[in-house]
Amino acid sequence: MPEIILSINAGSSSVKISVYKSPNGFVGDPIQLAEAVIEGLTAPPASLKYERGDKKIKGEVLDGNIQSQEDAFRYILDYLTKDEGLPELEKREDIRFTCHRVVHGGDYPRSQVIDKETFHHIAQLSDLAPLHNAPALSIVEASSIILPYATNIAYFDSSFHASIPKHICTYPIDQAVAKKNKLRKYGFHGISYKFIVHAVSNFLKKPKEELNLIALHLGSGASATCIYHGQSRDTSMGLTPLAGLPGATRSGSIDPSLMFHFTHSAGKPSRSSSAHMHITQAEEILNKKSGWKSLTGTTDFGKISASDREEDVLAFNIFVDRLLNYVAPYFVKLHGEVDALVFAGGIGERGVKLRNAVVENVKCLGFMLDKEKNENPGGDIVTDISAKDAKFKTLIVKTDEQLQMARGVLEDRERLEQQKTVGK
Amino acid sequence: MPEIILSINAGSSSVKISVYKSPNGFVGDPIQLAEAVIEGLTAPPASLKYERGDKKIKGEVLDGNIQSQEDAFRYILDYLTKDEGLPELEKREDIRFTCHRVVHGGDYPRSQVIDKETFHHIAQLSDLAPLHNAPALSIVEASSIILPYATNIAYFDSSFHASIPKHICTYPIDQAVAKKNKLRKYGFHGISYKFIVHAVSNFLKKPKEELNLIALHLGSGASATCIYHGQSRDTSMGLTPLAGLPGATRSGSIDPSLMFHFTHSAGKPSRSSSAHMHITQAEEILNKKSGWKSLTGTTDFGKISASDREEDVLAFNIFVDRLLNYVAPYFVKLHGEVDALVFAGGIGERGVKLRNAVVENVKCLGFMLDKEKNENPGGDIVTDISAKDAKFKTLIVKTDEQLQMARGVLEDRERLEQQKTVGK
Repeated sequence: MPEIILSINAGSSSVKISVYKSPNGFVGDPIQLAEAVIEGLTAPPASLKYERGDKKIKGEVLDGNIQSQEDAFRYILDYLTKDEGLPELEKREDIRFTCHRVVHGGDYPRSQVIDKETFHHIAQLSDLAPLHNAPALSIVEASSIILPYATNIAYFDSSFHASIPKHICTYPIDQAVAKKNKLRKYGFHGISYKFIVHAVSNFLKKPKEELNLIALHLGSGASATCIYHGQSRDTSMGLTPLAGLPGATRSGSIDPSLMFHFTHSAGKPSRSSSAHMHITQAEEILNKKSGWKSLTGTTDFGKISASDREEDVLAFNIFVDRLLNYVAPYFVKLHGEVDALVFAGGIGERGVKLRNAVVENVKCLGFMLDKEKNENPGGDIVTDISAKDAKFKTLIVKTDEQLQMARGVLEDRERLEQQKTVGK
Repeated sequence: MPEIILSINAGSSSVKISVYKSPNGFVGDPIQLAEAVIEGLTAPPASLKYERGDKKIKGEVLDGNIQSQEDAFRYILDYLTKDEGLPELEKREDIRFTCHRVVHGGDYPRSQVIDKETFHHIAQLSDLAPLHNAPALSIVEASSIILPYATNIAYFDSSFHASIPKHICTYPIDQAVAKKNKLRKYGFHGISYKFIVHAVSNFLKKPKEELNLIALHLGSGASATCIYHGQSRDTSMGLTPLAGLPGATRSGSIDPSLMFHFTHSAGKPSRSSSAHMHITQAEEILNKKSGWKSLTGTTDFGKISASDREEDVLAFNIFVDRLLNYVAPYFVKLHGEVDALVFAGGIGERGVKLRNAVVENVKCLGFMLDKEKNENPGGDIVTDISAKDAKFKTLIVKTDEQLQMARGVLEDRERLEQQKTVGK
């Protein structure tokens, strides 16, 4: 019997759930059956997108009661079980596994079956990244009540980076406080990077254990990772996703003293704070009110790239400049032995002009694009857009965090089942 | 008649004054006559070092009254005028120019004669870097009273970086606040970088306007600068000297949200604050209680380099890693057209092991050391320590900020005299 796996990805204003069944004999990748997305939670009425085979619903407006991640989760569950075209999922008990994307997983080096103890632990470490973990946590909590028969599993964006060496993940600050408060570089987007390693390994027919990549996951949140022998060796994000590259509303790295010259209330609680969620004004401003939105008025990097307004050009050039600040050191940290420079994420996939600007700037390292391939890369999971005589490859990877989580279930089935039994 | 120039460099716990006379016919470099340093101001009794020709005094303990930068300044002035071996400086009126090293010069693209108006302006912009400007400001203020006949000039560590393009010095934050509060990347150590450009240009017999350098000024404060055609194009420090590389007691760049997870009092005033000096606890901790001191217990990077204790090795490796984060992008920002990688500053000059580790890590870019030369570089202003078949040169430069300021007086005499007259 095939088993049903849900991959759940909750953002600050959206919930995305992909439905998979396990493949025949559990060999190969999970097979996607359907995908549902609810968007606009923070600006109701929310709307639903749904795809199953040929059936496509785009932007069905929902009633105003769907306002939280948990509302959206319950709505999608009902929707899936009622969809007659989805006989594999007739009732909630048909769901065997749920995968939850959790941004900050602290020291967890791999996925965790969620029981009372792990939930408590994840909730605690979410203090380090309340803005980022909160959306997932509400669904994780609901999940164990609504789907008690399923094995509920947390997949962490930070786990992939557990391999970063100590001299790279240690901040040069008071080590007693660092230890006590768990202050170190963690890194994020790890589910995506794991997908990228898998995909590029297949594409280049090179074992993961020998693969060296400079990987860029560029979306409204953006990061860069140095991948040595299939493992993370350095990454641009830090203690939280704020550090590193700028994003749609995120400043990225700035002078650590800047916020104290931005506002005298930097350390005071923000309006989004609650009894369970301690967020300073500085963190709110730097995560939600900065980035290219603050430079241009829009979060849409496509629009920015296409425009020749002074502020759009500035935002574009800032992003290119900051990308070089990671691509170049990662080249050096791989001793110049690089299998590919990888562009992934929404902007990585669609940013023709951005890819061109970045690669043009690292020409002296041996990267070069094929103009035609860069402009029309097609829709494959991995596309080689390098020029013929480039010393190093440049690839576009259509990353899929939902699939990577579901894949993790099949890979780790035994450990997860065992962990669930022990946890009971 | 030769003219007497004092170059004054005030640190948080020390004051250094170099005495120069202008060369014959004002052609060539200023000629150093004497140098006096008072150290230990924050841990009295302070002590004096003095050099004039063959006369050398090392560490003469002074009475306990010398506790401030102004005390030290007055003491040294008396000492110099009383030194019979220094007939060129018999009385205070013999001093024609004083040069003051001021860390943060805001938007000033060059040195400024200090009158009431410029002093007021410098004092105001010091809000951005009170920890760094305060020591100089007290002497600048005293100077105009004690030496009213001299032309008192401020040299800013930030001026050299006025050439950094907008897309590199702009932070992706609310631009209205950025403009109002003057929040951008400024960069520091500029007097030293100007010296380095001058010295390397002479050494390589290449005009400054064509010179491309990756320059590292590594002392208890450390920075890296990308120099394109003799001008700064990027630098590691930011709004304040805190950003970028770690230093003796400075964290360098960290996740901008880190301090809010380090202490709940991050935004509250520190004990060093006064009515005139607003310093938050976060800034105090990150500038004064972090860096390799916080990792190893010592500020002495020589000791750290020589040790194989785990924490010393960690601090050493952190510094090498963070240096790569600037050397590599600057290589790329110069399109691989690099005249030299330059090591300067106390650690740059003496750090045999550090230079070796850094250059070994950028071998893939075309840098390579001559082992023997790196270990015994001699005492020249500029020393080439590259291997014969290295694609790019690596140099050590004995930088001299005091001389560079005095040199600036001769170069800019006309402008400075004019500015003084106008200012009156």
